[in-house]
Amino acid sequence: MIISLDAMGGDFGPQIALAGADIALTRKPHLRFVIHGEEDRVLPVLAQFPKLQAVSEFHNCEVSIAMDDKPSKALRRGRWKSGMWKAVEAVKHGQASACISAGNTGALMAMSKFCLRTLPGIDRPAMSAIWPTLKGESVVLDVGANIGATAGQLVEYAVMGSAMVRALSENSKPTVGLLNIGVEELKGLEDVRVAGQMLRDARLDSMHYHGFVEGNDIGAGTVDVVVTEGFSGNIALKTAEGTAKQITRQLSVAMHRTLMAKIGYIFASGAFDFLRSKLDPRNSNGAVLLGLNGVVIKSHGGTDNEGFAAAVEMGHDMAANGLLEKITRDLEHFSTRKEQE
Amino acid sequence: MIISLDAMGGDFGPQIALAGADIALTRKPHLRFVIHGEEDRVLPVLAQFPKLQAVSEFHNCEVSIAMDDKPSKALRRGRWKSGMWKAVEAVKHGQASACISAGNTGALMAMSKFCLRTLPGIDRPAMSAIWPTLKGESVVLDVGANIGATAGQLVEYAVMGSAMVRALSENSKPTVGLLNIGVEELKGLEDVRVAGQMLRDARLDSMHYHGFVEGNDIGAGTVDVVVTEGFSGNIALKTAEGTAKQITRQLSVAMHRTLMAKIGYIFASGAFDFLRSKLDPRNSNGAVLLGLNGVVIKSHGGTDNEGFAAAVEMGHDMAANGLLEKITRDLEHFSTRKEQE
Repeated sequence: MIISLDAMGGDFGPQIALAGADIALTRKPHLRFVIHGEEDRVLPVLAQFPKLQAVSEFHNCEVSIAMDDKPSKALRRGRWKSGMWKAVEAVKHGQASACISAGNTGALMAMSKFCLRTLPGIDRPAMSAIWPTLKGESVVLDVGANIGATAGQLVEYAVMGSAMVRALSENSKPTVGLLNIGVEELKGLEDVRVAGQMLRDARLDSMHYHGFVEGNDIGAGTVDVVVTEGFSGNIALKTAEGTAKQITRQLSVAMHRTLMAKIGYIFASGAFDFLRSKLDPRNSNGAVLLGLNGVVIKSHGGTDNEGFAAAVEMGHDMAANGLLEKITRDLEHFSTRKEQE
Repeated sequence: MIISLDAMGGDFGPQIALAGADIALTRKPHLRFVIHGEEDRVLPVLAQFPKLQAVSEFHNCEVSIAMDDKPSKALRRGRWKSGMWKAVEAVKHGQASACISAGNTGALMAMSKFCLRTLPGIDRPAMSAIWPTLKGESVVLDVGANIGATAGQLVEYAVMGSAMVRALSENSKPTVGLLNIGVEELKGLEDVRVAGQMLRDARLDSMHYHGFVEGNDIGAGTVDVVVTEGFSGNIALKTAEGTAKQITRQLSVAMHRTLMAKIGYIFASGAFDFLRSKLDPRNSNGAVLLGLNGVVIKSHGGTDNEGFAAAVEMGHDMAANGLLEKITRDLEHFSTRKEQE
């Protein structure tokens, strides 16, 4: 399987992207890469990873997208020629099975939409996040690709999220919840209510519609897929990140306040390492741009080698397990039902 | 100062409400109470607190609102006669300076709106939460009274939130942020953008408009007041609660995994107590229903004596420090500006 890399994205550029790809290659030796970026910045780094170099093809792209470029400007400047565009285009032309970029999120979404287009039956793509929970991991979408969503779009998100869980795990019938305020059937937004009814009526084999869930259900792992529109999804994601940071900071302060606490910290250091690994955002690095005619993974811009490797492996898993086919099959089910009615 | 109590609300009814009022009385001995509820349930409990009994007046109300009654049903059944209604009405008639209830949130909001009406210039009330942050505490509103908000309503929320901070602390010019996705001026919802412009133009002496904030800024304490519409506010609040619960659960599991960790836990137990007190939701119990012609505090339904006492004291502080006057003064500033334009 060939993975297409945008080597110029992220806060650290080629250094992290190539080191990450090298780690992924160690774990999945059948991987091959097409790498896009500025040659004077990428090639010296690539030379540090001879094994990666041996299985990679490099394409020089003189234009790179800055992390703070507006999506419209990035599209104007970078279309047809930037490393990011070329990385996405390799998927479109079938040269690669998945594209990984740690670059500017808005620009990556804009270019992916423009270059790959959405799958038949999908109104617009969504961005999904993998959320560590008390029970394992859940998929939450949309975490900020679009503001607002109609009932039909929420149903599409549910289909895409459940396909993603099935592509990443053994779970063949994920539970799906619609994020709402209050679990009573009558509460909340009209579109959320209608989407709930549509999912309930559809009785898909590929998902179990659980009903409404609230914000606290996400971390509890009540459902495998949490569906919401992008504004509240982004706020939920960032609020959880902020809360996790706040508590770990307070824990660290508490553990250094007294001599007794410091001694306790030394004894329990293994436990703290365990907790840290549980909370490590690198374990779930990689948002997936869902609903496109191709697999595109957005790695966190500030991630490290291991984090980027996780994003590469996620791209591999999504492509290997037929993410797009799974989405298309479920959507057909919805459109067939519509025609029958 | 006289505080009006709905003794029948919450998961535990009079037992918690009266024990909580008794604790508040110990700390603020000048408090007096009017207590509303069913006499055969309230009076035996009141007799257990002779000091509280000595400074309280009791009113028998035969109707009580269930925690799961729909607001419309609660209003039909409980208007004019339930303990909750009577507790709110005591504020309307000037018999009490603030009302505290641990009852059904939707019912309390509906009755308070119907009985007290909104302040002049306020479209509709909002529910605010006190949010523990890395820097101390912030006020977040609306956390679920209404879904959606116009730019004008968001401005009202900003005015109410800043008045609340000034009523509860020494901070005479709180910083205010509008919750959004992305901090660039161009991102986000139209209403949020317009509200930002209105707050910036107003240049109030009573608040400093900071600009947009994101979900992770809430826990970081970037601003003193976080303003958002009720759907995303409720999701942010519950997501943070869920994340806090998840991490403390994982911490507890980590601390009991190995013998070394258990030993460390014993040494560091003081530090864990410190962390627990920092995260204790009872410290910030009490949502305020803002924008009404009176001070109404919603205590968490599942809180304990100390939590209810905190809600009583918050009601005291809000009334003593002129919450309503502070809101009215800032709103006049906005309407005067509008007339001048």
